[in-house]
Amino acid sequence: MGEQGSSYSAKDYHDPPPAPLIDPSELGKWSFYRALIAEFVATLLFLYITVLTVIGYKSQTDPAKNLDACGGVGILGIAWAFGGMIFILVYCTAGISGGHINPAVTFGLFLARKVSLIRAIMYMVAQCLGAICGVGLVKAFQKAYYDRYGGGANELAAGYSTGTGLAAEIIGTFVLVYTVFSATDPKRSARDSHVPVLAPLPIGFAVFMVHLATIPITGTGINPARSLGAAVIYNNHKAWSDHWIFWVGPFIGAAIAAFYHQFILRAGAVKALGSFRSSSQV
Amino acid sequence: MGEQGSSYSAKDYHDPPPAPLIDPSELGKWSFYRALIAEFVATLLFLYITVLTVIGYKSQTDPAKNLDACGGVGILGIAWAFGGMIFILVYCTAGISGGHINPAVTFGLFLARKVSLIRAIMYMVAQCLGAICGVGLVKAFQKAYYDRYGGGANELAAGYSTGTGLAAEIIGTFVLVYTVFSATDPKRSARDSHVPVLAPLPIGFAVFMVHLATIPITGTGINPARSLGAAVIYNNHKAWSDHWIFWVGPFIGAAIAAFYHQFILRAGAVKALGSFRSSSQV
Amino acid sequence: MGEQGSSYSAKDYHDPPPAPLIDPSELGKWSFYRALIAEFVATLLFLYITVLTVIGYKSQTDPAKNLDACGGVGILGIAWAFGGMIFILVYCTAGISGGHINPAVTFGLFLARKVSLIRAIMYMVAQCLGAICGVGLVKAFQKAYYDRYGGGANELAAGYSTGTGLAAEIIGTFVLVYTVFSATDPKRSARDSHVPVLAPLPIGFAVFMVHLATIPITGTGINPARSLGAAVIYNNHKAWSDHWIFWVGPFIGAAIAAFYHQFILRAGAVKALGSFRSSSQV
Amino acid sequence: MGEQGSSYSAKDYHDPPPAPLIDPSELGKWSFYRALIAEFVATLLFLYITVLTVIGYKSQTDPAKNLDACGGVGILGIAWAFGGMIFILVYCTAGISGGHINPAVTFGLFLARKVSLIRAIMYMVAQCLGAICGVGLVKAFQKAYYDRYGGGANELAAGYSTGTGLAAEIIGTFVLVYTVFSATDPKRSARDSHVPVLAPLPIGFAVFMVHLATIPITGTGINPARSLGAAVIYNNHKAWSDHWIFWVGPFIGAAIAAFYHQFILRAGAVKALGSFRSSSQV
Repeated sequence: MGEQGSSYSAKDYHDPPPAPLIDPSELGKWSFYRALIAEFVATLLFLYITVLTVIGYKSQTDPAKNLDACGGVGILGIAWAFGGMIFILVYCTAGISGGHINPAVTFGLFLARKVSLIRAIMYMVAQCLGAICGVGLVKAFQKAYYDRYGGGANELAAGYSTGTGLAAEIIGTFVLVYTVFSATDPKRSARDSHVPVLAPLPIGFAVFMVHLATIPITGTGINPARSLGAAVIYNNHKAWSDHWIFWVGPFIGAAIAAFYHQFILRAGAVKALGSFRSSSQV
Repeated sequence: MGEQGSSYSAKDYHDPPPAPLIDPSELGKWSFYRALIAEFVATLLFLYITVLTVIGYKSQTDPAKNLDACGGVGILGIAWAFGGMIFILVYCTAGISGGHINPAVTFGLFLARKVSLIRAIMYMVAQCLGAICGVGLVKAFQKAYYDRYGGGANELAAGYSTGTGLAAEIIGTFVLVYTVFSATDPKRSARDSHVPVLAPLPIGFAVFMVHLATIPITGTGINPARSLGAAVIYNNHKAWSDHWIFWVGPFIGAAIAAFYHQFILRAGAVKALGSFRSSSQV
Repeated sequence: MGEQGSSYSAKDYHDPPPAPLIDPSELGKWSFYRALIAEFVATLLFLYITVLTVIGYKSQTDPAKNLDACGGVGILGIAWAFGGMIFILVYCTAGISGGHINPAVTFGLFLARKVSLIRAIMYMVAQCLGAICGVGLVKAFQKAYYDRYGGGANELAAGYSTGTGLAAEIIGTFVLVYTVFSATDPKRSARDSHVPVLAPLPIGFAVFMVHLATIPITGTGINPARSLGAAVIYNNHKAWSDHWIFWVGPFIGAAIAAFYHQFILRAGAVKALGSFRSSSQV
Repeated sequence: MGEQGSSYSAKDYHDPPPAPLIDPSELGKWSFYRALIAEFVATLLFLYITVLTVIGYKSQTDPAKNLDACGGVGILGIAWAFGGMIFILVYCTAGISGGHINPAVTFGLFLARKVSLIRAIMYMVAQCLGAICGVGLVKAFQKAYYDRYGGGANELAAGYSTGTGLAAEIIGTFVLVYTVFSATDPKRSARDSHVPVLAPLPIGFAVFMVHLATIPITGTGINPARSLGAAVIYNNHKAWSDHWIFWVGPFIGAAIAAFYHQFILRAGAVKALGSFRSSSQV
């Protein structure tokens, strides 16, 4: 029965050892560079589709253009664009790069020792470059509208304090990274759980949900690459002066999620996992 | 083949014995307190995201502020926020606490002897505290708008009788708890069924559906912790005078769902289950 | 390996023999009456949630009440209510009754010899009674609005001919019943297919899609019990005079779907299935 | 254990040999003609539901008819119609024809040598005929509105250059065909992946997302059969003069996606796959 046991554990149940901080061997593998390409392309597509949706919505509903106020996809459509793209891109790239598409997710997984330091840094670089290119495409396609309609940049809305914006980004990113940890937890199947693993769908929904709640406050960052890409291409003073919020907030939120998952939810779980394994593989 | 049989039954098919009313041994386990923490955090996040969505929608569409009447996420977006958050939170916490996030669900599962009395009471306390903290965060973030836009509290709408509101809460909670029982039924796979178990998605959709239907009547409670959290933070006379509806209604609905599932749908099923097991494990 | 083979084939892969026209033995089983109760309750909940959503939407957006034109859940929300309820109700009742909740689905499955004649007739009676009770609840809850806003009844919209309405119902029901047949096809896993079985979700989406397309024409029936329930409670001349369309159309559409699936898509498949089985069970 | 190994590999894990350019043997099989019928019917239903949704939305929100500007399903509802139909039609036809429903998808899979040349050409013919018939049905049902509301045809919106429209079609089709390749990749399960295969849902979401983003630019083609069907039935000068964009763009996008998947993401993967297989089957 050994073969069968291994075919099960090969799927989802094993707890991999912590990733080394620096793993020189991965630099020699094609799969590492392929993962960087996949993160670059996925973040490019993410920003392209979502910012194009934002600009298109705003141009369709501009009262100055005498158009139908209900003519666009609505804020709800924008929230779907962000959540839905994360769903399909995590689905498509999970097997290639792990499907991060977000420096905050990479940072959380680095803190949990799921990826090495060098991989984390290179992923973030690839994501930021991809985001800049994605928003650049939108500006090229929407020359007439891009600057007029705010460039899809994240800014603190009027009437909200910096502390509120920062806290909204922290909690929003916590919701996302907590879902990522739950969805990719190798212990899911080892617990007494009735829940199958459909990882990309709840991760996409987490992004959708946070956008519903915080678009009125910050436009919803929870992804520093997304905020950086729009800030670089829009290049507006207000977008840059608020920009630190969209790095500090998501990184704090991701750190809290990593702490919550690793030290609260997983504490004491190692033994239970061990007992499961011994019974299923002996 | 014994090992393989047990690996199947360990997944979904076994019918656990009824939970004891009082189980002193669970008080000594870390997993019990971890479950309380998970329920607290999940209910906090649930109320934070959903009430923030409600307040943000109302502030974006306030005619007095001369804004676009169609500018927010819409009632449809609010219904998605409630349903979508239950989807991701049940997904994330199912393996830790069972993913109740709702005293009415806990009550229904207690009646069906799936959780002990002490666990049921402690879950409800954790859920109510989490809900109060979640709505408190929204008030802190939305100082300017929280009280002006009704605080996300459940109240009977003008023109509806108390009996209608109570009945709407009973049936709405029945839909939710019936879906919970169906989704977590260990007998699903034992029946001649073409339906795989995707528990959190239909549970989230059940919440979404009930919100579409009853937001105009009661604002949709079907979760006493959600109603209590908003009532405590909003602290308005009307919200408190209607508040009993949002405990009595959901608890009656959950009790009917537990009765329907245990005595109508499961009756006579024990024998069939037994015959399945004997054929699959011998 | 015999046990394992049977545990696989017990799940999804076997092609059951045609149901007898009249099967007296099922009348003596509790599971038959339980299935009738489940169909009754599911159709009741279906009509209750969906018609309540329709009436609530219309009362929230009534220009005569000086309300926000964008205040309700929208036609999109109504389409979600119909599709989403079918998703969760098929999910909940599939293991009890097969999850028909629609006389046209029952008729299609009867033509394909999946259910006996007596079961088909009794299901339709249970569905129609459930639908009447569900709409009755809505009228009781919405006394002030139910009649004013059209009672959720299916009628041919102004400007469309009877032939167009009938054809729209035929094609709409074809889409639904074709999806039902595809989703429950025991041959799915036997074919060289990359598609897992998630039956209730595409079935719910089929209902959602048809509502998006045909609400402007007929209000979308594709479910004679739904149309009958609303017609009985609304009891309006126009609703009754068009009512035959909502029986004849869905039954023709279901018959075409059954024919398409059984004689076009399944033709010649018996041999392939046989070869699969012999290789997997020997 | 040989039987079991083959039952696993029969499901999803094997990498089939490249399809021959011309495979005369498939012309003699009923399954080939059945696949053509399935593609024809699916594309017909796709265009019927989606174009009917477009026309119905436009007639419900026509200001000239003094109707509620927010009365229809909205652009968001139209995007759902396109994405949701692809979800259910891929789900229904995947086991019969592979579920292409789009000449660009067929072209991409042909370039990757997943289908033979003769099959690719015949699929495209069936898809185009189905699309024409589907739009023809809409025109027959909506005589009064079809021509008045643009016939669901794809055209470049005012203010966008040909290059922008072409680029939008290329990238949009890339998103779709990249998702198709990812979803049907036989190597998914062989990789260290936490993502199960739910192929039709992300494919449908990809279509939904691209519509959210590019409806304001081109009306969103990304499917030459969809564009051809509407152009033939609408038969308008502007629709025809832009028509080449909706063939050239999608075919280029599909080719880039096929190249990206086969040469970037799959490169070097053959060896890893081999090692997986040897360990799981020995």
